[in-house]
Amino acid sequence: MKPIPPHIRVVFPGRASFHIAQMSPVNEFLSPPGPDGLRHCQTHYQEQQPPPRQQQLPPVFGGPHYRHAPEAFAMQESMLLVKQPAGVETLNLQDSSFSTRASVMAEDANGIYCRSCSTEQVDAAIFKCFLRVHGCCARDGQTQLTVRHQKDGIRNIVLNNPKKRNALSLSMLTSLRSDILADVDSDDLRVIIISAEGPVFSSGHDLKELTSAQGKEYHSRVFEVCSEVMSLIQDIPVPVIAKVNGVATAAGCQLVASCDIAVATEKSTFATPGVNVGLFCSTPAVAIGRAVPRKVAMEMLFTGAPISAHDALLHGLVSKVVPEERLEEETMAIARRVCESSRPVVALGKATFYRQMAQGRDAAYTTASRVMVDNLALRDGQEGIRAFLEKRKPVWTNSTEKEHE
Amino acid sequence: MKPIPPHIRVVFPGRASFHIAQMSPVNEFLSPPGPDGLRHCQTHYQEQQPPPRQQQLPPVFGGPHYRHAPEAFAMQESMLLVKQPAGVETLNLQDSSFSTRASVMAEDANGIYCRSCSTEQVDAAIFKCFLRVHGCCARDGQTQLTVRHQKDGIRNIVLNNPKKRNALSLSMLTSLRSDILADVDSDDLRVIIISAEGPVFSSGHDLKELTSAQGKEYHSRVFEVCSEVMSLIQDIPVPVIAKVNGVATAAGCQLVASCDIAVATEKSTFATPGVNVGLFCSTPAVAIGRAVPRKVAMEMLFTGAPISAHDALLHGLVSKVVPEERLEEETMAIARRVCESSRPVVALGKATFYRQMAQGRDAAYTTASRVMVDNLALRDGQEGIRAFLEKRKPVWTNSTEKEHE
Amino acid sequence: MKPIPPHIRVVFPGRASFHIAQMSPVNEFLSPPGPDGLRHCQTHYQEQQPPPRQQQLPPVFGGPHYRHAPEAFAMQESMLLVKQPAGVETLNLQDSSFSTRASVMAEDANGIYCRSCSTEQVDAAIFKCFLRVHGCCARDGQTQLTVRHQKDGIRNIVLNNPKKRNALSLSMLTSLRSDILADVDSDDLRVIIISAEGPVFSSGHDLKELTSAQGKEYHSRVFEVCSEVMSLIQDIPVPVIAKVNGVATAAGCQLVASCDIAVATEKSTFATPGVNVGLFCSTPAVAIGRAVPRKVAMEMLFTGAPISAHDALLHGLVSKVVPEERLEEETMAIARRVCESSRPVVALGKATFYRQMAQGRDAAYTTASRVMVDNLALRDGQEGIRAFLEKRKPVWTNSTEKEHE
Repeated sequence: MKPIPPHIRVVFPGRASFHIAQMSPVNEFLSPPGPDGLRHCQTHYQEQQPPPRQQQLPPVFGGPHYRHAPEAFAMQESMLLVKQPAGVETLNLQDSSFSTRASVMAEDANGIYCRSCSTEQVDAAIFKCFLRVHGCCARDGQTQLTVRHQKDGIRNIVLNNPKKRNALSLSMLTSLRSDILADVDSDDLRVIIISAEGPVFSSGHDLKELTSAQGKEYHSRVFEVCSEVMSLIQDIPVPVIAKVNGVATAAGCQLVASCDIAVATEKSTFATPGVNVGLFCSTPAVAIGRAVPRKVAMEMLFTGAPISAHDALLHGLVSKVVPEERLEEETMAIARRVCESSRPVVALGKATFYRQMAQGRDAAYTTASRVMVDNLALRDGQEGIRAFLEKRKPVWTNSTEKEHE
Repeated sequence: MKPIPPHIRVVFPGRASFHIAQMSPVNEFLSPPGPDGLRHCQTHYQEQQPPPRQQQLPPVFGGPHYRHAPEAFAMQESMLLVKQPAGVETLNLQDSSFSTRASVMAEDANGIYCRSCSTEQVDAAIFKCFLRVHGCCARDGQTQLTVRHQKDGIRNIVLNNPKKRNALSLSMLTSLRSDILADVDSDDLRVIIISAEGPVFSSGHDLKELTSAQGKEYHSRVFEVCSEVMSLIQDIPVPVIAKVNGVATAAGCQLVASCDIAVATEKSTFATPGVNVGLFCSTPAVAIGRAVPRKVAMEMLFTGAPISAHDALLHGLVSKVVPEERLEEETMAIARRVCESSRPVVALGKATFYRQMAQGRDAAYTTASRVMVDNLALRDGQEGIRAFLEKRKPVWTNSTEKEHE
Repeated sequence: MKPIPPHIRVVFPGRASFHIAQMSPVNEFLSPPGPDGLRHCQTHYQEQQPPPRQQQLPPVFGGPHYRHAPEAFAMQESMLLVKQPAGVETLNLQDSSFSTRASVMAEDANGIYCRSCSTEQVDAAIFKCFLRVHGCCARDGQTQLTVRHQKDGIRNIVLNNPKKRNALSLSMLTSLRSDILADVDSDDLRVIIISAEGPVFSSGHDLKELTSAQGKEYHSRVFEVCSEVMSLIQDIPVPVIAKVNGVATAAGCQLVASCDIAVATEKSTFATPGVNVGLFCSTPAVAIGRAVPRKVAMEMLFTGAPISAHDALLHGLVSKVVPEERLEEETMAIARRVCESSRPVVALGKATFYRQMAQGRDAAYTTASRVMVDNLALRDGQEGIRAFLEKRKPVWTNSTEKEHE
């Protein structure tokens, strides 16, 4: 392990995001800019109880959606996103004991991300990032675990490790998290589609990472990050659609269950076979048990036997089953429909759905009724109603501006 | 706005119910009869925190069913029901600053209700009510928003504004609430069927009521009353059946989801298209999210696309799908089956179902086990068992009398 | 009622279990062995509030699975299981005022149980038990209410009172409980199948036990024990499969809903007809309401009408519907599949599933993530992964030994 030089200064000439994804269970935070205009990134190790992060988080972090979902903070404990709309961003890494499992990712204004790398490569990564921001191509010879591209508000994230059956290794999870979170509060993003390269959507965790040799702390980290990614899908302000064409097992099945919507081809199958390798699918069961009836979940979990796409539809694990040749079209139809609505209205609706569903009926109505009134106060809320009454198409601002108080 | 004269005295010569449905967020209560035999209705305005009502409620209010469901009180905050089994009922309206949005409804012993009206018409309304109780016909030239008729224990409530697609305007909701609550604790009422006139079951809220011009307080009131009506359906002691023949959207779909049972024709469709007009169906989602799997709810909410009656059945939004020509017969078969059972047994069962479903398994069993023992102590509980053992039809008392302590 | 002699000493020459199932609401506990090597069984009557049992329970009671499910203790309040792996077991019954409704059951090392009996017969029962352990056949002329046999890890429990439509009388429930709990923590037991003799799976409670003549306390006891058995099915460490070929009504339907998995034949039907005999199926609704959509549960409960096996499958009440001739095969296929996996892995997974499902999403992920890490620390957890990576069949220890801390 090579120590990080105490002061790496990187100058980003454009709008850029800088992620620090810390694999080991540490706390880290960025200071507000000092008199020299620098932010300081402090990383603390070995602390078992993370201090309350809300107070220490720089104001630059997170969008309004996280504000009323305090668990979202905890979820993103190990990822800090520094946005500098324009001009110079200087990052100070003061800690010299960076773990080898730490990774640094950076992405430019277009949401194109730089490969994650171990800290030994941090200089190179930052350099590559620098190049990217300048429009240069930074290749590092490795296949990207996930591929992201975005157009007209629709972000496609493709699990891109078909040789390893798109196993949700820690790197894959981190890469997926990074692709989900990148500029997630930007108005340009309206919906996310998660699909996969190859015949296996995802086979779940990488069992090689779960041996005694890796150690308990590493195992903990894997399930923490996995739970974080699964929860993140439900907590971000845009809908997430799983586009499934093949086998989805264990945490791969959990990923499908966690998405807001799932479109699957007829040949797709779903299973939780962990019990067969001595690792009961207990974390996948959190998502699957909340998606399908108990008896269905139980049979899947106890036998490990796959269910067909048809049965998955019947029991609510997926939203739609289509012939393979129509998968793209049907998924895009849903995605485009989301794009036709107002961003803050969808964001408010999604957050409220999950919030009220965790409450009793009466509390749920109190929550949802208040949100309806807030929704109506939005400029887009009133524009929608006006357009309806005037029999014309609405023109959304997609902003959170209010029409009335 | 015409001030209400401080003392309107109305004499009802028969058994009568008198509703005061107050649209504005006020508190009001009826005093116990004074030395002059009068009850005083006091109305307070502008209070933000309603005082605890339980203590102030006159003993005449509510049946035993509301006693162990404290939320039912809050729900009916703005409606007080004064029953006078026989003789003279005198009502004193002491407040002179009645809002124009207030309405007064009265109904006679046969459950025939008097039209709601603005307070400017209060004298006339009370007069009409008076006439009704005397068997006269009080017509006011307006179409009734809901029509109610009751026979052999089965109450039919028909949404009766087909020109406006049976929009759940505040008046419609109030009228519906009134029809649901009227004599709801009477032994004569065994089951309620909610249906609609015209090709649209209900299109949800009236968007004209949700503009900035109406103002935030009015919006709040709309969703409060709507949530109240939806909850009421589940909290009253008799089953409520939705009889759907057509389109049910937004709060109209919520109404179907809120009913205990729903019978729909094959052509019926269900949607939550609020997102298309910039108003995400967050309150409908409270009922729909508790009726269908999450993935189904999410796709409906994010896309606004309708689902067929078949899919609604598949996912639990309706109980039965029938050809149009069999809708009446199938709905009545269920209603009549309810009428064949003992009223207090059904009431106990319904209340317990919703109560235990909100609890964890062990607490639910404690609740339900106690109720079973209470149920067995009822005269009708023992009669049912005796009849079964003696191989004869049971003869219900339909009373809450006990066979043993 | 004949008083129990203060000191009955019974010597079991083999490994044996001794159950004391106490029907009346009493507290009882066994002392740790005294200097004379005897355990004392103390029975307290008339106490309304049971004292905290955890502290008083002898270490011999219960397996590790009960340790982290405190409700399981309360559940088994009236049953104490004394295991003596080998040698002499002497039981001291010091209380002379045994209730007539108490029963004593004993079973030998092969899990063959001795008939339950009233306390008047206690001497005889213990004597028979003694005979059984010595390999003699103890017949008492009565048909056994449940029949249990176990082979290759698969325990079959057959409801065996077809003449009474396998009514879940208190004796039947007690017998079923005894069959479920017998040696439930033994590694020899991997899965339980509950089936029934005759065309009726079970018709629910025995209505003759629910008359006023029996009294409120007895009714309470019936529903307590019933709730206990239903909960027990979900709380024990092995999966329980209902194998249904016929009618399952009321508590019989509840039994199917409570099992982890249910395989039913096409001709099977399911109903909650209590409302027809004046006893609303409120306790069955606890299990059924958690298995099927609300609208389905409500229609079943309010009308009492049966649903087909097909509809039961559609709505999640059963896991699989098969032709009658394939019932045995399909059920055994699932059971054998369970036997192929590691016992502690299945036990951990089952307990975690129910635990996390009662929590909110974030707490559920915290629970399940910890369990995954614990699962990986098991010798069998690591063996499974090794076998997978080495492409061979795993060889389970089926013990809770750890590979790493």
